[in-house]
Amino acid sequence: MRTLQVALAERSYPIHIGAGLLSSFPLAEQVRGNQVMIITNETIAPLYLASLEAHFSAIQCDTLILPDGEKFKTLETLETLFDALMAKRHSRTTTLVALGGGVVGDMVGFAAACYQRGVDFIQVPTTLLAQVDSSVGGKTAVNHPRGKNMIGAFHQPRLVLIDTDVLNSLPERELAAGYAEVVKYGLIRDPSFYQWLETNNDKLLSRDEAIISEAIFRSCENKAQVVADDETEQGNRALLNLGHTFGHAIETATGYSQWLHGEAVAVGMLMAIRMSAELGWVPAELESKVATLLSAWGLPVAVPEGMTPEQFMDLMALDKKVHNGQLRLVLLRELGKAVVTADYDGAALQKTLEAFCGA
Amino acid sequence: MRTLQVALAERSYPIHIGAGLLSSFPLAEQVRGNQVMIITNETIAPLYLASLEAHFSAIQCDTLILPDGEKFKTLETLETLFDALMAKRHSRTTTLVALGGGVVGDMVGFAAACYQRGVDFIQVPTTLLAQVDSSVGGKTAVNHPRGKNMIGAFHQPRLVLIDTDVLNSLPERELAAGYAEVVKYGLIRDPSFYQWLETNNDKLLSRDEAIISEAIFRSCENKAQVVADDETEQGNRALLNLGHTFGHAIETATGYSQWLHGEAVAVGMLMAIRMSAELGWVPAELESKVATLLSAWGLPVAVPEGMTPEQFMDLMALDKKVHNGQLRLVLLRELGKAVVTADYDGAALQKTLEAFCGA
Repeated sequence: MRTLQVALAERSYPIHIGAGLLSSFPLAEQVRGNQVMIITNETIAPLYLASLEAHFSAIQCDTLILPDGEKFKTLETLETLFDALMAKRHSRTTTLVALGGGVVGDMVGFAAACYQRGVDFIQVPTTLLAQVDSSVGGKTAVNHPRGKNMIGAFHQPRLVLIDTDVLNSLPERELAAGYAEVVKYGLIRDPSFYQWLETNNDKLLSRDEAIISEAIFRSCENKAQVVADDETEQGNRALLNLGHTFGHAIETATGYSQWLHGEAVAVGMLMAIRMSAELGWVPAELESKVATLLSAWGLPVAVPEGMTPEQFMDLMALDKKVHNGQLRLVLLRELGKAVVTADYDGAALQKTLEAFCGA
Repeated sequence: MRTLQVALAERSYPIHIGAGLLSSFPLAEQVRGNQVMIITNETIAPLYLASLEAHFSAIQCDTLILPDGEKFKTLETLETLFDALMAKRHSRTTTLVALGGGVVGDMVGFAAACYQRGVDFIQVPTTLLAQVDSSVGGKTAVNHPRGKNMIGAFHQPRLVLIDTDVLNSLPERELAAGYAEVVKYGLIRDPSFYQWLETNNDKLLSRDEAIISEAIFRSCENKAQVVADDETEQGNRALLNLGHTFGHAIETATGYSQWLHGEAVAVGMLMAIRMSAELGWVPAELESKVATLLSAWGLPVAVPEGMTPEQFMDLMALDKKVHNGQLRLVLLRELGKAVVTADYDGAALQKTLEAFCGA
């Protein structure tokens, strides 16, 4: 087991990474009250719920199984969760345990932020995406029909438990979606990690456990450092959103159902790289290098059929990074150095959108 | 104008109190972005919305008028609010302005806590209850069918603007409901204020402006001190809930519709005083003294017809002050000195409930 610390003063917490932790980690010791509710989804429940429940046989342990999918990441599902907590009389000392991917983690985290104005929660991410990204850093949210993650809170977990074994049951497509975020860390702030990923791509693809574990560790390390510097995204934390503004537009346009988040981010990163190249900040060949890396995983490298530059502009205007009407984007100044800026030539954005939309 | 500061480090903010402030205070200067949404209700809108809107003619100023009443303090209404913000493309630099009583303030505050993971908000309370209590301190929430204020957040406003003139349009019953919370401050931590209230009861009843203004100032001062010491209710902030556990049970039993919050608190405080007297902590005559004070305002001094001790126990078990199954209550050790404790003789609670329920 390897452990990382997310350094946030009185809200600091550990991320534990290792094979078999779902069973072997002494999880019950981490619970402060005598009530727990494990929230998971229909896909994950048959695989791992029993192992997790086994930790809490000595206290009140309730479970809630939600439908699986981003389209259920809504205020409505949240209400189901609150209803269950109230029905089982969970008090302010309860602990919510999120067992699942980013959807479950974001939603349970937000429920924990709001239930009785804030209770403890533990993240047990079961997808690569959640392990390297969404479970770390305390961003919680549900979607609004007009935009992703629009209703949420910053609420840090008590701990994150990453069992690398769970990736064995993860479909290829989901693993690839998570991999997009792994590449992101290399691109935005860790060029040597990016090189390492190019070198080890074949081993990662063949699911070499030690290599996957190292990729998770280095991803979480990058994420933890960014979050520790800027918990509530007043500044550099926004760099983690490389490709996300473009990607969210794709997700919104496709109704959060056809594209996985990581898939949308993969294309979004390529768009951000193209735009950075248009601005003369990175060499044009970086886009094709990254596209090669992503393609090897079966990730998409083109926008959905029929999306237009106008549609992108319209949807991106709702992004949380809009400040006083100005659209700020995360772009690459160079490989391993992202910036968030509204100070760019609009023509470069327009050209990028046109190129990707085939307009 | 008199100004109080709520001392909360980087979340500190002022409370301005005075006649005519709704028009005269330079409110636009306090807004950081270039978007504002004023949220109010059907009762208040015709009275004060235009005055408030006039401040924001230079920037995007949208308004949302909600139905009036505690029964609309729900996740559903919150969704209406989010829909309006998204439809008008409010960004993370927007400011929400809550113009109304506690229901509007609590709900708008919670919306501000969650919209895009947190935006600015300003409280412009229009009831005495909101002015002396709910608008100060950053507790925000909506109700759940099974319990009051169960879904919420701690989110401090940028400022609280208290225009004492608005009380002139407040129905007697609402003024009385707010007065119950004023008396509370005297009972829990400010015995000289309690004496002052006994002395000045007639002037308050005749709406003597200087006296009402002083009562508001001293109430806010007490609240601000408590909040500054314990922002997220880890300890002494719970003392502000004198009478509230009993009161919430009454409100839940009556569906949040027949009783005003302050009315339920009035009876709840009498129940807490009775129980404190049963425990030998305060003289039995304190209850009748306080009852006389409250009755003069037309406040109820008895529980709703038909409520049983069992019903109280059942509803109180859902209170946020339940820790690991133990019901903690705010009681008086002496006049002006409240404690929150689970360390009491259960018989005293039972006896109190029986006495009030006529069982």
